[in-house]
Amino acid sequence: MANELPDMALKAIGIVSNGIKQRPEQGWEKVVSDIVIKSHLTEALDSLEEFSHLIVLYWMHQLATTDKLSLKVHPKGKQELPLVGRFAYRSPNRPNPIGKTTVRLLEHQGNILKVEGLDAINGTPVIDIKPYIPRYDSVADAKVPPWISNQ
Amino acid sequence: MANELPDMALKAIGIVSNGIKQRPEQGWEKVVSDIVIKSHLTEALDSLEEFSHLIVLYWMHQLATTDKLSLKVHPKGKQELPLVGRFAYRSPNRPNPIGKTTVRLLEHQGNILKVEGLDAINGTPVIDIKPYIPRYDSVADAKVPPWISNQ
Repeated sequence: MANELPDMALKAIGIVSNGIKQRPEQGWEKVVSDIVIKSHLTEALDSLEEFSHLIVLYWMHQLATTDKLSLKVHPKGKQELPLVGRFAYRSPNRPNPIGKTTVRLLEHQGNILKVEGLDAINGTPVIDIKPYIPRYDSVADAKVPPWISNQ
Repeated sequence: MANELPDMALKAIGIVSNGIKQRPEQGWEKVVSDIVIKSHLTEALDSLEEFSHLIVLYWMHQLATTDKLSLKVHPKGKQELPLVGRFAYRSPNRPNPIGKTTVRLLEHQGNILKVEGLDAINGTPVIDIKPYIPRYDSVADAKVPPWISNQ
């Protein structure tokens, strides 16, 4: 199906369990969550505990019904910050509501990954887990605009 | 639809154009690709050029038909490396064939982002673009197992 329109239907590989019902804007850094992976995939988690950090991709299901998005936004709704394109901002509201968060892995037991710093509410479907590998994921000389630090 | 099964159908926001037909294992670091974003989303790219690096999420459409995946793999097929869980490895073959690559943004013109280091073949559907922000994306003290450096 090289050049046809591919079917891009995601399957949940697991779910977030942390009891959090509403997404706070900040303060996620110390939140501890369990990622409960579907039991038939348990073996695919082997060796993840050898990494200190994971990249979690998840589907922000409570936002998934938003069809009409403005293309430009003031970050965090702050009028004093410049109006920027939606893709230049890490808002959860985007054409595909996929979150990508780097978390610390605290514990791996069976089909459960206990992680710190996941900014996803209880019940969020998880769609991928990747190990954090500095040579792929870390950029030494990355530059960001000044409005990022003023958010 | 808080606790029901959400509809997780992705929409392509754009497509990779680089003339590359087959995915080499290595040597992507210097590949230059155009990401051609759908024209109705052009304005959502505004201000991306203020960032040096982007995170690109894409759908590895040529792998999307793989239904049966072994849960454990030898990285890069090397028998001398340990058998690890599929999620502990950055292989493109995973339950949801989503690639996540951090790239350098070389140029932004209209609906086209010219980037360096994207490991996706020509025609790959792009599903999200996020700016690379060190305080979210960079981990100073990340640890990886020894087999990662021996890949």
